[in-house]
This record gives sequence, C-alpha cells and structure tokens, in this order.
Amino acid sequence: MKNTINEQAITQVTTPEQLLEHYQGHRRLTRKVIEAFPENEFFNYSIGGMRPFAIMVKELLAIAVPGLTEIVSGNTSEFDENRDYGTTKAEFLEKWDQNTEEINKLWKQLNAARFQENIKLFGQYEGSVLSNLQYFMDNEIHHRGQGYVYLRALGVEPPLFYDRS
Amino acid sequence: MKNTINEQAITQVTTPEQLLEHYQGHRRLTRKVIEAFPENEFFNYSIGGMRPFAIMVKELLAIAVPGLTEIVSGNTSEFDENRDYGTTKAEFLEKWDQNTEEINKLWKQLNAARFQENIKLFGQYEGSVLSNLQYFMDNEIHHRGQGYVYLRALGVEPPLFYDRS
Repeated sequence: MKNTINEQAITQVTTPEQLLEHYQGHRRLTRKVIEAFPENEFFNYSIGGMRPFAIMVKELLAIAVPGLTEIVSGNTSEFDENRDYGTTKAEFLEKWDQNTEEINKLWKQLNAARFQENIKLFGQYEGSVLSNLQYFMDNEIHHRGQGYVYLRALGVEPPLFYDRS
Repeated sequence: MKNTINEQAITQVTTPEQLLEHYQGHRRLTRKVIEAFPENEFFNYSIGGMRPFAIMVKELLAIAVPGLTEIVSGNTSEFDENRDYGTTKAEFLEKWDQNTEEINKLWKQLNAARFQENIKLFGQYEGSVLSNLQYFMDNEIHHRGQGYVYLRALGVEPPLFYDRS
C-alpha cells in the first residue's frame, strides 16, 4: 500500500498546492503591474476602445474569491464585476492582498478529488473545477498582457514576465 | 488493486491528456489571432516600441516544438527565436499547423511521471517539466493578449477569448 501511494505521488502531473502556488505567482506579478501604473492612467488610460486596466482588475477580483467561494461552498452566486473597490491604486492593492489570503484559505478547503468534478460556475460557466480555475489564471494572464501594452505605450517599463517573486 | 487505480484516477488534478488539450485549445485561439491580423500589420504593426505580433509568434514557435523535443529526448539545444518561417501569414499558419501535429506526437512520448522531474530547458531554464510546459502556455497567453490590443488599436475585432474550438 505504501508503494502504491508513493507511485501515485510521483505520477501526479500537478498537485493542488502546486497549482495554488502557480496562481499566486501570477497574482504577485499582476500586483506589480498594478503598482507600475501611474495613478490616473490605471483608472483612465485605454487603447482601441478597450477597458482601462482598473476595470480589468475589477473583473479579476470579481472572479477569484467569489468564484472560489462558490466552488468550495457549492452555493451559486451571480457574477458581478461592478463591485466598488475604491478610487485609488492603494485601495485596489489592499483588496488584492486581502484576496491573496482568502484564496489561500479557500484553496485549502478544496479536496484534490474535486478538481475533476463538473460544475456550473456563477450559474453559467460549465466545466470541471480544474477548467474553471485554469480560466481564472488564463484570463488574468490575458488581461495582464494587455496591461503590459498600456504600460509600454505610456513609456513605463513593465515588470519582468518571469518574475513571480 | 482496481480500486486503488480508480482512486488515483479520481484524485488527479489534471492528466497529461487534459493538459495537452488545454494547450492545443490555446494554440487554436492563437491561430485565430494570427488569422485576424491584416497581412502587413502582422509583420510591422507595433505599440510602444514592442515587437510586431509576427516576431512574438516566432518566439512561440521557437519554444513549443524545440522545447518539447528537448524534454522528450533529453538532448539540450540552444534557444533560437530567429528561425525563418517565411514572409507571409500563410507560411506562418502552415508552420503553426505542422507544430500542432508535432506537439501531439511529442506529448504522447511524455510519461506522466516526468512532469515532476527537474530539468534545465535550453540549457538555462531550471524547473520541473510541468513548470516549463506551464510557461509555454502562459507565455503564449501573455503575448496573445498583447496581440488583442494591437488588433483593437487597428480596429479589428479579435476572436472571443473563451472560444477554443
């Protein structure tokens, strides 16, 4: 039995803990991107009619903790990306850091067996728990990449993509 | 023994096959973004001194098959993002589709137990096979997100982010 458990540990492609660390590494990088924006441009700068970066961050905040809370509790909630997080970068960063702790707590309540379970997040996004969590990360990387273009267009050097410290 | 195997299947966060499908879904979306660019702008349009999208795609092509080939074979190669893939979108798309098949073939040669193995990709990027493969995907999502801004700035509607068909 011990050998079987060891074999299972070795053949895991990834573990819940590794996936959390991967997510938090990306969230640390997104935090650096928020910090890199000039205060006014964070809320108002846009290219090609796209949303300012602050509005994209509101979307990320609307997904992460509300989504994980729903996955852990099983209680469906409505997706709401229009919550009020304040009017300054400092307020957004404070909320971001609160989320970091909440995500850690929620993730610990997620049993490994649940990642392959099918759900309908926010009452509309069907897929496995894993595919929903991957969407959280992919969507954050996607919008953060857009934030990089905003920063470059503003003449601001963005943080290194591979720096997740 | 049968029960143990079943239990292992259930408690996998993800499987190699699911991770491949996730990657190929992202690659299908990137292909749509390449297609969406006007021919000239694919090679020449840029914002804030960043690289044109064709040059970013050259980076993606330099990572995917060469990286996977190295992971599967164990033979270190040098990272080379200056390979010649032609001068037309059609040539890039043809190369992209060849890569799709090659990635499928290479992935099948990757034993599940190897994802947690530590490697030094291209002789310089240290980390597990998993973390390197995640980087392939994350880096693609990151640059594709930048391509979305280029398209919007050009007045072109980008493909839907969640459409991986």
